[in-house]
Amino acid sequence: MSVNLLTDKAREIEALLDEVLPPVSTRPAPIHEAMRYAVLGGGKRLRAIMAVAACESVGGDGRQAHGLAAAVEMIHAYSLVHDDLPSMDDDDLRRGKPTVHRKYGEAVAILTGDALLTAAFAELARMPEKYGIDFATTVAVIAELAEASGSQGMVGGQTADILAAQAGAMARDEVELLRYIHSHKTGALFTAVLRCGGMIGGASPRQLASLTTYGEHFGLAFQITDDILDEIGSEAALGKATRKDQAMGKLTYPRVFGLEQAKAMARESVRQCLQALDELPEDTHILRELALMVVERDR
Amino acid sequence: MSVNLLTDKAREIEALLDEVLPPVSTRPAPIHEAMRYAVLGGGKRLRAIMAVAACESVGGDGRQAHGLAAAVEMIHAYSLVHDDLPSMDDDDLRRGKPTVHRKYGEAVAILTGDALLTAAFAELARMPEKYGIDFATTVAVIAELAEASGSQGMVGGQTADILAAQAGAMARDEVELLRYIHSHKTGALFTAVLRCGGMIGGASPRQLASLTTYGEHFGLAFQITDDILDEIGSEAALGKATRKDQAMGKLTYPRVFGLEQAKAMARESVRQCLQALDELPEDTHILRELALMVVERDR
Repeated sequence: MSVNLLTDKAREIEALLDEVLPPVSTRPAPIHEAMRYAVLGGGKRLRAIMAVAACESVGGDGRQAHGLAAAVEMIHAYSLVHDDLPSMDDDDLRRGKPTVHRKYGEAVAILTGDALLTAAFAELARMPEKYGIDFATTVAVIAELAEASGSQGMVGGQTADILAAQAGAMARDEVELLRYIHSHKTGALFTAVLRCGGMIGGASPRQLASLTTYGEHFGLAFQITDDILDEIGSEAALGKATRKDQAMGKLTYPRVFGLEQAKAMARESVRQCLQALDELPEDTHILRELALMVVERDR
Repeated sequence: MSVNLLTDKAREIEALLDEVLPPVSTRPAPIHEAMRYAVLGGGKRLRAIMAVAACESVGGDGRQAHGLAAAVEMIHAYSLVHDDLPSMDDDDLRRGKPTVHRKYGEAVAILTGDALLTAAFAELARMPEKYGIDFATTVAVIAELAEASGSQGMVGGQTADILAAQAGAMARDEVELLRYIHSHKTGALFTAVLRCGGMIGGASPRQLASLTTYGEHFGLAFQITDDILDEIGSEAALGKATRKDQAMGKLTYPRVFGLEQAKAMARESVRQCLQALDELPEDTHILRELALMVVERDR
């Protein structure tokens, strides 16, 4: 039941992205083909569903968050395309298909990531015209997403992750580094999209604080589960290689805390997510489903 | 004299960028060190000088274009970092120094480019707060720069360039392809920065049209000269490898039109630039100097 609900939402986002991305016939065709390949055809669409749900949770019209939803999926897709590159995580499979550089070559993959990141900001800048968002909110959303994605957000987390893996033997404070990496690499974008969805919906400062709390705990639960799945999950279900983190010497929650404690930490984060939702005035059932699903998923 | 003027302007932009980029001590330090390495310490700063000059040419306060100036230099620097990568142009030298991937490794170089592109949009979104630009103009500037940099602008041009070089033997219509590549790879960003500087300065539609004309011809003159310098310039003056285009089988103006005709085309473009300036109400001497300098430069 709840899985069907999220699947339906994901299908709506897929249709939105199909419409927002330029058609393959757009010149130069190879980059537009690769952009569509990188973004379309799967994915849980957590971030986009969250954008819409956060907007609705404070009484906004969820359709007004569609620009944000499309943009954040493009940012997420760009980060995967670049993270998968040979000089980074060197992955051959993503969502059960060859990664972008395996299919289109490394040069086109780098450019595809660049193009998707740029297209995300273009789409955000179209929010006033397409969705009637006021200019001040549009600028605030762009600022928040850019901060969360940049060198002190997602890219910073990925940099720390890559450098920690390259350095091999671990830092003085493993737990602190692990938290830093994941709160930046994964958490920052979740939190930003929830806050931006809230802003579009007209959230009060207090409601934004609740969405922020939800986002931080969601990000943690998500990342712990990701680490656990990398260790014990099935390659077939995940559609990508498993046990990569260990092979690359990456810090993970099960490695640092042990499997059972990691699972308990994820459950505790979900409890905090659900508690944060109590502060929100409108329908929060999608955000609730997302929080419950995130630790139960097998992919 | 005119060279000193542009050198002074470049020094001002350098100081601005030094202030805008996060200090090296910002965590994670390696990415912030690499971002500063990629952006600071040289470069003609044409795009930034143009942003300020375009703003002033329509009667605006040039300091209000400083956010745009910093952002466009970050976008330009990101494009160089990614273009220099081994899977793209595979360059070892840039501005007389090792390229970012030679100094910091390929993974950090990819992330540095990503971080700079993201930081550019963050800086643009700060224009209302830092420079008093209204929200509607800020959104228009972000939209214009994102379009010009993306898959149907700069990234599109770079994609077509890489694919044409890989394909080797050339297309049915070499001239059309050459124009497409360069008007997108180089021209689109010049034109966008001139238009955005104009918008910040409060340009009328007619003034924006003149800045657009200037930008298109400037881009052409710039690219033709770049191609000529790659063929006949000195590696020492340029601070990067020369005769790369030919080695990579790239389409260039001297290759397609011959050296003399290419030079004549560049001069004609400069004439068109100067003519477009006649339509602008205020001081245009910097834009004039830039147009004259672009074909006379040796780097």
